[in-house]
Amino acid sequence: MQKFYVALDKSPYPITVGSDLLHQPGLITPYLFGEQVCIVTDETVAPLYLETIKNTLKNYQCDEIILPDGEEYKTLATVELIFDKLLSNRHTRSTTLIALGGGVVGDITGFTAACYLRGVNFIQIPTTLLAQVDASIGGKTGVNHPLGKNMIGAFYQPRCVICDIDVLKTLAAREFQAGFAEVIKYGLIQDAAFFSWLEEHCEDLLKREPNDLGHAVLRSAQIKSAIVEKDERENSLRALLNLGHTFGHAIENLAGYGNILHGEAVAIGISLATELSVIKKWTSTDEMNRIKKLLQKMNLPIQWSPEISGMALVKQMMNDKKNIHGKLRLVLLKNIGNGIVTDEVSEEELYQSLLK
Amino acid sequence: MQKFYVALDKSPYPITVGSDLLHQPGLITPYLFGEQVCIVTDETVAPLYLETIKNTLKNYQCDEIILPDGEEYKTLATVELIFDKLLSNRHTRSTTLIALGGGVVGDITGFTAACYLRGVNFIQIPTTLLAQVDASIGGKTGVNHPLGKNMIGAFYQPRCVICDIDVLKTLAAREFQAGFAEVIKYGLIQDAAFFSWLEEHCEDLLKREPNDLGHAVLRSAQIKSAIVEKDERENSLRALLNLGHTFGHAIENLAGYGNILHGEAVAIGISLATELSVIKKWTSTDEMNRIKKLLQKMNLPIQWSPEISGMALVKQMMNDKKNIHGKLRLVLLKNIGNGIVTDEVSEEELYQSLLK
Repeated sequence: MQKFYVALDKSPYPITVGSDLLHQPGLITPYLFGEQVCIVTDETVAPLYLETIKNTLKNYQCDEIILPDGEEYKTLATVELIFDKLLSNRHTRSTTLIALGGGVVGDITGFTAACYLRGVNFIQIPTTLLAQVDASIGGKTGVNHPLGKNMIGAFYQPRCVICDIDVLKTLAAREFQAGFAEVIKYGLIQDAAFFSWLEEHCEDLLKREPNDLGHAVLRSAQIKSAIVEKDERENSLRALLNLGHTFGHAIENLAGYGNILHGEAVAIGISLATELSVIKKWTSTDEMNRIKKLLQKMNLPIQWSPEISGMALVKQMMNDKKNIHGKLRLVLLKNIGNGIVTDEVSEEELYQSLLK
Repeated sequence: MQKFYVALDKSPYPITVGSDLLHQPGLITPYLFGEQVCIVTDETVAPLYLETIKNTLKNYQCDEIILPDGEEYKTLATVELIFDKLLSNRHTRSTTLIALGGGVVGDITGFTAACYLRGVNFIQIPTTLLAQVDASIGGKTGVNHPLGKNMIGAFYQPRCVICDIDVLKTLAAREFQAGFAEVIKYGLIQDAAFFSWLEEHCEDLLKREPNDLGHAVLRSAQIKSAIVEKDERENSLRALLNLGHTFGHAIENLAGYGNILHGEAVAIGISLATELSVIKKWTSTDEMNRIKKLLQKMNLPIQWSPEISGMALVKQMMNDKKNIHGKLRLVLLKNIGNGIVTDEVSEEELYQSLLK
């Protein structure tokens, strides 16, 4: 079991990574303020781990909400459902919400905690690799709007994050592998040694060897936390974490949500960002080949589906970025371990890269 | 025109109080980040002041949302309506929401700003006395839930607050007078000299004499801001601002919203809190008489409607407080200018005070 702290404005909070954590009340109860808890989880995770968590909270008023599984339920309507439950069961300002699930559950629960009685305590217990290395860390919470993903939300930090490696055993292979897109991303943007370590250990990681898996999760969480500490609200540095995401979101949009996993879209996005970095002469072809090779070894895609035209992809990217977030900014690589946020990519270079 | 700054965690922001402020672009435009603005207002205020504000923003993409008037629209559904407009009109992270209206408009707009793209800029232009001296200051934003008022919300500070005294001329007498319950409250909890000043100037204030009105708004805003600076999230000191509100909320609930104005309920609440302070032997009968006299001179009620039983009022208070916010805490007076937050009020004392 390893623990480190995320040091933000207010009190620092711990992220614990290890095996057999869900049975340990000592990891949760010190972070509860009052005698009330509400566990938010989904239909996939509830049968596996809900009772385990409830057993550690026998001395508390412990309510539960089991959401249907899927991104399509990440809406304000679901948040309202949780408000109804909390108010009906008279949860006070000292209650704690516990998010037990993947990124969708974490995002919804965190946003609900941010808004209930103007903000109550919450704890993240992520149960997917993607949520352990990415979604549960950094305080980005929110829900989708029919006109765009994560358009409604808050920056709201949990009181602690508990990453139990054992729960990854039950993940479907495709979902498990998809999480590695984000893991590889951390090596690429900030830590060349970690990238090399991933190259060396990718077979053991795919076999879900606990020690290797623990290290991959811990190092990813540390890299993300260190970036978030320096730029919680994404005014500058935090944008680095979007490597592969601008391409990835456009691909997800065009493929239709549900047809491609987020991690898979990010893997393709990383590959495209790398190709563009080569066009900019910032990254060598050798490095590009190493990156693509590692993605492929993790069974991740590096090319988008032929049903999507390169032209449609460029249009979608320009549309996403220019209209909602301002001008087109991309994360590219100077080399492995050295990401860079840039708005120096012309539309021509984008075409050159995508319409080849 | 007088200006002072509220110094919170992040950058301090100004509150400007004076006449003829709405025509001055220089009070708004320095606080805009980008080229987009969305003014949120209501059907009562829009015909009076919307064009004036829009005229100061001719170089901006200036959208508007005119809400139906009334507390019953202070819901998540209204927030969603604003999200729809913002996303349809492609408002980016650098947009600014302007709340032009009373407390309801300010609370809804602030909460929407807190959640849109995880937080965008917003400006308060309060157009009622109540909003100028209370609701627009301190960053409490939110909406109601069928099971309770202000149950969903955020602490989210505006970028600036503009209190134009001239707009108070168009307020209905009853609404105008109700705002003084909060003004008197500030004198009672923190500033005996201000309370005496109110006693001396109450006739001119009722005549809406601009200089006196400007002073009353400025001093109220200063007292509230100073308290919020010390305790933004209401962990301690800020609770002082609830003088009269625990009683008041219970009265509003029992009377049915819309049948009594918030300020009127607070006036009755202040009167009841004072009576309880006399029972506790903290406040003298003389002081109680001064307080009741000033409330009455401002045409405010000091006794609740006979249709409500004292027993029902006690029950409602216990229910509101114990169940949603924890144990019963009240704000009482040690004497005029010296409020105190206490949980030393027994249920017996409450009965003694209310069932007389």
